[in-house]
Amino acid sequence: MNDPKAFIAQALERLRAEVPGRTIVAASGGIDSTAAALLAQRALGERSRAVFVDTGLLRAGEAERVDALFRATGLAYRPVEASERFLAALRGVRDPERKRKRIGAEFVRLFQEQATEFGTDRLLQGTIAPDWIESGGALRDTIKTHHNVGGIPKSSKLVLVEPLRDLYKDEVRAVARELGIPEADRQPFPGPGLAVRVHGAVDRDRLRRARVANAVVEEEVDRAVAAKEMTAPWQYFAVLLDARTVGVTGDNRVHGEAVSVRIVDSVDAMTATAASVPPAVLGRIARRITRELPREVVRVLYDVTDKPPATIEWE
Amino acid sequence: MNDPKAFIAQALERLRAEVPGRTIVAASGGIDSTAAALLAQRALGERSRAVFVDTGLLRAGEAERVDALFRATGLAYRPVEASERFLAALRGVRDPERKRKRIGAEFVRLFQEQATEFGTDRLLQGTIAPDWIESGGALRDTIKTHHNVGGIPKSSKLVLVEPLRDLYKDEVRAVARELGIPEADRQPFPGPGLAVRVHGAVDRDRLRRARVANAVVEEEVDRAVAAKEMTAPWQYFAVLLDARTVGVTGDNRVHGEAVSVRIVDSVDAMTATAASVPPAVLGRIARRITRELPREVVRVLYDVTDKPPATIEWE
Repeated sequence: MNDPKAFIAQALERLRAEVPGRTIVAASGGIDSTAAALLAQRALGERSRAVFVDTGLLRAGEAERVDALFRATGLAYRPVEASERFLAALRGVRDPERKRKRIGAEFVRLFQEQATEFGTDRLLQGTIAPDWIESGGALRDTIKTHHNVGGIPKSSKLVLVEPLRDLYKDEVRAVARELGIPEADRQPFPGPGLAVRVHGAVDRDRLRRARVANAVVEEEVDRAVAAKEMTAPWQYFAVLLDARTVGVTGDNRVHGEAVSVRIVDSVDAMTATAASVPPAVLGRIARRITRELPREVVRVLYDVTDKPPATIEWE
Repeated sequence: MNDPKAFIAQALERLRAEVPGRTIVAASGGIDSTAAALLAQRALGERSRAVFVDTGLLRAGEAERVDALFRATGLAYRPVEASERFLAALRGVRDPERKRKRIGAEFVRLFQEQATEFGTDRLLQGTIAPDWIESGGALRDTIKTHHNVGGIPKSSKLVLVEPLRDLYKDEVRAVARELGIPEADRQPFPGPGLAVRVHGAVDRDRLRRARVANAVVEEEVDRAVAAKEMTAPWQYFAVLLDARTVGVTGDNRVHGEAVSVRIVDSVDAMTATAASVPPAVLGRIARRITRELPREVVRVLYDVTDKPPATIEWE
């Protein structure tokens, strides 16, 4: 892609050809799906319906942030509160692949319902090149909002529309700018949400811990960036590990959980480097997380691995 | 303790009173037990026998280092190769407490055998104040070499002798200096060895990974200290976590393990701070570990938690 304006004009034309009737749009609030949803709204008007699902796996304040983002960009959308059904689908599931499959299946069911209600079989989503290249093409026919969850089942009649599938991340950013998506809070957030940042069993308690830890990482990094202690990273978040570890309060040993902090620099998410974060900033993050989750989280680790060999996300 | 010389003179006198016959000494190669063993040898001569157990849970080159240390200090000792029986005792055990108990029971059995063979019921060991203070006194009557494993069973007839039990770490260091123990490689190493640095199941493969990762941490920190990139820390080591995580090689995802790197500054091990390690050093450690254990370890984390709230060891 050379020129975002030209790309947008072409994309609108293609969308009109590809969607003769109506489509729903999986809108997660991420930059990719927001750009895709705006393209669809421009191309199809009310024949496109963006659907935002609150899975209960969102970050602290996420639903509010997404609402503000969609309002700011003029994107009309339908919010769907679905935390009960996603938590139920995840009950007792510890294996990452099974987790993704359960979430994926729940997303498919939910979007199928939404599509049927809207009178279409089209589902538009913000798949970009790294989403399918990384898996060697295995992610074709996969719902991106919960990517790596396996394909849409044969029994489903959903037809995917993916206007951004040939773009790389920096190209999507250029398109997003052109579409008037504000620069703020553009860090990517995975479709399966905190479920893949809660390693092991997912329940309300562990989600709460992951949410608190993640909010601390976001606040402290934002503050450090504002204070020019570090440059703005590509992505920064917390992962609640599935590993008990020992801590100490006063003279007593306590068993608690550990949090991994991931802060990376990247251009296109295909490769990434662990950000050079000043030790003082990491110290503040560790102290705040363990103080705000006393006896629950007793250890904080900073992920110092580049991609490759590690991925950006933990699981 | 004010004066190490005076302490040593008193300790020798007390040892002669406390051990009318013979004693064996649990000598791990750590500074505490080496100091204790030297005191015993000075006080009792050939009535004291230091026993060094190769549990198969040692660091790379550990047995050789300990041998060199004991030779340098003039400590006579008996090496016991026991890796098969310790690995067998640990087979299938994942829980940290059960692991310590199995190792503890194996140590008790082994020292009981050694004591009987030497014609004594006395076991002398290098317990110091933090070993029992931290657990609120619960570690009285515990074998220190595998501390926190529960007490010596009632059925055992071993009587403990602990000449250093009132000393703090910095005091032990002063005594060690006075006893002529060389300064090099004095970082503490836990009695249960790599078993508590292999979170989860302990087998030869996982021990090998922990050993390789730990050697990288030791070498890179030593090099960085020599190059004045950082000051010499109190303790530095690797922990193999019991958590699968995702990595990427070429276009393929791989599932591997994660390593936590722990580098702390401390004065007496009662409290500790995560060392301020330059990001470049952490990057070198991460790259070497993942390169030397390709597809086996795909993620490296740096523990940024102080003690409290975390302990120095992981489990």
